[in-house]
Amino acid sequence: MAKITIADYLIKRLNSLGIEEIFGLPGDYNFKIVEAIEKNKNVKWIGSTNELNAGYCADGYSRIKGYGAIVTTFGVGELSAINAIAGSMAENVPVMMIVGVPCLKDINNKTFLHHNLDNVDYNAFEKAYSNVVEMTSCIDSKNAKTEIDKLINTMIKTKKPVYLKLPIDVCDCKVEDDYKTDYPVSNSENLKKASSEIIKIIRTSKKPIVLADVLASRFNSKKELNNFLKKTKIPSCSFIRGIDIIDNDTENYFGVYVGHLDNKICFEYLNSSDCIIAVGTVLSDLNTYNFDFSFNLKNHINIQPYYTEVKGKRYENVLMKDIIKEINENIDYISNEKIQREFFYKNSLEKPTGKLTSKYIYPRLENFIKEDDILICEVGLVSFGAAPMKFKKNISILNQMVWGSIGWATPCAFGTCLAAKNRRTILITGDGSHQLTAQEISAMMRYKVKPVIFVINNSGYTVERILCDDPNYKYNDIANWNYSMLPKVFEGECFSRQVKTNKEFDEVLEEIQKIQKEKMCYIELITDYLDMPDLAFSIAKNPNKIKELKENRN
Amino acid sequence: MAKITIADYLIKRLNSLGIEEIFGLPGDYNFKIVEAIEKNKNVKWIGSTNELNAGYCADGYSRIKGYGAIVTTFGVGELSAINAIAGSMAENVPVMMIVGVPCLKDINNKTFLHHNLDNVDYNAFEKAYSNVVEMTSCIDSKNAKTEIDKLINTMIKTKKPVYLKLPIDVCDCKVEDDYKTDYPVSNSENLKKASSEIIKIIRTSKKPIVLADVLASRFNSKKELNNFLKKTKIPSCSFIRGIDIIDNDTENYFGVYVGHLDNKICFEYLNSSDCIIAVGTVLSDLNTYNFDFSFNLKNHINIQPYYTEVKGKRYENVLMKDIIKEINENIDYISNEKIQREFFYKNSLEKPTGKLTSKYIYPRLENFIKEDDILICEVGLVSFGAAPMKFKKNISILNQMVWGSIGWATPCAFGTCLAAKNRRTILITGDGSHQLTAQEISAMMRYKVKPVIFVINNSGYTVERILCDDPNYKYNDIANWNYSMLPKVFEGECFSRQVKTNKEFDEVLEEIQKIQKEKMCYIELITDYLDMPDLAFSIAKNPNKIKELKENRN
Repeated sequence: MAKITIADYLIKRLNSLGIEEIFGLPGDYNFKIVEAIEKNKNVKWIGSTNELNAGYCADGYSRIKGYGAIVTTFGVGELSAINAIAGSMAENVPVMMIVGVPCLKDINNKTFLHHNLDNVDYNAFEKAYSNVVEMTSCIDSKNAKTEIDKLINTMIKTKKPVYLKLPIDVCDCKVEDDYKTDYPVSNSENLKKASSEIIKIIRTSKKPIVLADVLASRFNSKKELNNFLKKTKIPSCSFIRGIDIIDNDTENYFGVYVGHLDNKICFEYLNSSDCIIAVGTVLSDLNTYNFDFSFNLKNHINIQPYYTEVKGKRYENVLMKDIIKEINENIDYISNEKIQREFFYKNSLEKPTGKLTSKYIYPRLENFIKEDDILICEVGLVSFGAAPMKFKKNISILNQMVWGSIGWATPCAFGTCLAAKNRRTILITGDGSHQLTAQEISAMMRYKVKPVIFVINNSGYTVERILCDDPNYKYNDIANWNYSMLPKVFEGECFSRQVKTNKEFDEVLEEIQKIQKEKMCYIELITDYLDMPDLAFSIAKNPNKIKELKENRN
Repeated sequence: MAKITIADYLIKRLNSLGIEEIFGLPGDYNFKIVEAIEKNKNVKWIGSTNELNAGYCADGYSRIKGYGAIVTTFGVGELSAINAIAGSMAENVPVMMIVGVPCLKDINNKTFLHHNLDNVDYNAFEKAYSNVVEMTSCIDSKNAKTEIDKLINTMIKTKKPVYLKLPIDVCDCKVEDDYKTDYPVSNSENLKKASSEIIKIIRTSKKPIVLADVLASRFNSKKELNNFLKKTKIPSCSFIRGIDIIDNDTENYFGVYVGHLDNKICFEYLNSSDCIIAVGTVLSDLNTYNFDFSFNLKNHINIQPYYTEVKGKRYENVLMKDIIKEINENIDYISNEKIQREFFYKNSLEKPTGKLTSKYIYPRLENFIKEDDILICEVGLVSFGAAPMKFKKNISILNQMVWGSIGWATPCAFGTCLAAKNRRTILITGDGSHQLTAQEISAMMRYKVKPVIFVINNSGYTVERILCDDPNYKYNDIANWNYSMLPKVFEGECFSRQVKTNKEFDEVLEEIQKIQKEKMCYIELITDYLDMPDLAFSIAKNPNKIKELKENRN
């Protein structure tokens, strides 16, 4: 059998998952890996401006393309990326973290090389990573094939990141050029038992409702779930992390659950249902608007990636996708409900007068976002603006409602641009978050991707002003940037504007429609201090103080 | 006895170490800590643009002021800073990493809050950190005082970073307002035995030489060492990490050891010495120019922070500072050597004609750098340019020759500006490195510090072009920035210029002398592709290819 180098084998396996771009930074311990990528015809090397950004890029890429990969150097490079990889772990985004490390001889001799601690422990950083990834592995010439295959299969099965340490001198060792990928399969008996039990319960229930969440998307069950909803017309809603799962035109779709903050008919229906069919649900604080629900999934149907619980009875080895399909094929139930979804943005045709406000921005963006777009909502206030929107077909909406790492969204947008070259990426970020990773804009321009970027400049960490005792605390101030000037520092084409009024915002949206295919659009939206989406105001710790401060400023 | 809150106690203890500024970013789990800092009269909160940068700031601050501290939020914040903290670990820089974490109730109940992984393990990130710091601790109302004291004493003793987890609801608990700091002391018997043994050996040796290195600086033994050299006139040299230890006017000082690359008389003297007195020496690859030496410290005198080895015999509990003082007080030896130091930059008065080159830049900077300046050399080529310089009195020179994390130097310069407000900070960085952390420039301008920053724009990761097989590999290219325009994006005052010729460089240096006290100076130095200091060229993997490429471009 033909043989190939271990570096080439690794790249080939990643490519077999659909990966065509690998992000990272070069360093003297990873030259051989990066060179192998540069020489590969099917995979392209993408140089990020720093490793944290590269990690976020790979996260965004994976969210759209299914899998992502990043290459860094030992110690300094890998540790800079660990927050991004931990984020992928928290959010079920499979990314392979590949670290180029010194030669095995130096590792075994404990030679004190640069990028190491002075205790010369070549396992310290792998140990650090083992807390935030599903699996770690150090490759040598003998275990390479088995370990690479294990890592790949772990990504496929768990949709979690994995970590690979590749010593310089192992890269060029040869292995056989063949592989077999393990895809998990359902236990057919459990599948049948669980689905017939579920069908029985749905038939006899009074108010069944589907609650869709993020894992339905990560474990590729969107199509099956939408088919099920189209056939049965069972009412449905989503948690915010699963905001892009259910087609918004689906009959009896309530939209996004936001606890008691809004969408009251959804709140009441879900919390009074005798049969919640939860699909891929994660009960974390932000996803549930601070645990603002009264049901217990033990009394309902809880469909998870590899098991299903029916009123507390657990069926193992049942794949989410398979069970939804199985239920759909065997159910004859059709709901009689006629639910009128409540739309939050009723004023989307409001006249464009006065200073730019969030009240105006989000309804306008609701109209602006087209079919097939990718919308990235930075951590902070953006998701409060986006949650109540009505979305057109096939839109991917990315947020980070568990990990919540400010700065994630900007490099993430670079990743999605490369993952879906024929779709439009729209990024909405706040100024505070954007500053953490803003240099990635230069990499986007260098690689000529064309996202539409809106930077909301409201003078500080506004989500924190809302959450702390006094919105005026100085520590939530940030350096003032002239954002619309930033792309001019970088080489490459960019349409850049500063917008201060609602009228200018409309004009710039029109302009973007015309030129977005030719160049990146980078728009600074200047709003007042403490301007925010209405939904965000509902969670303010000190709403009176906010009102008072806003009035005094205006 | 009076009682104060745990947050206030922590800040008071840090202040007792000389800390007057604490870096970081706010987040909902650390509000109470940041608010306590903002309310404190002796300590100021400094908001960085991201956590990695904040970590580098604290590292720079500590290198000048002795200790540093950073505050981040749980998960996302702390992991972003881990590379900086690991760097402080590798480089013996004491920094306290303070992490604001959720309430103890939520930790104990394993409530699934944001910034956590979905296995809801509130120890995962502390476990990750335990691999890269000297000590970690999670505080509660009972152990707070003991644990904070332990962390402080560990920093004092080891000059290493420590990690503190502080739950929200613990911040306001009260403890007694008193403390006692443990400073290590020498065992006087061992001290006397070791020093008399050393004096005996020096007296009978033919070619004694002092080899000064970084730990002499970290463990505050510079003054004692210089006194010893002034009295005995024993020849001396430094490793590159200890470049700022020995006063350059000291008789018989050879300058920096660079292996066989240059400074040949130093190379020969050190490697043929029958009595090396090594003070705080670290034998890592870059510090020794790739282990380019032939002595074995077991046959010499090896003075380390807490022990001294004399020809292999180890004396424990002997403090570096104490033993040098003890030797100096009891020795009557005076060397007869008359060493002429070789100066690398002989052409420092070369005429300013033609395009700007490294050959011109470094000798000019040698003249430009004044007494008391702080010089920060970014990882990469800069240290090759700085190593052979002759320095004036009391200059602090910061490099990162063990950890070698590109991007470190820019935020580090912010830290040193605040640590020494009456000294001038000069940063020399390359373009590739600068891009990783460039947004910290905006924080510097916001806080009105006034460093002199030189960004050498030579189109890519040039140190990597030197180290890899082919300097032309595309992966060492970076996005092209118009650096001198960058400060214009940020609010605040800055003198910014782009320099392309040697003549312009002279003019800009003159201009800086005039205005540096009023505003930050940010100078882009454009040199040719593959332009580099001569010393760097000596380590090129493929020097012929570099020559060929340079000729073709010019």
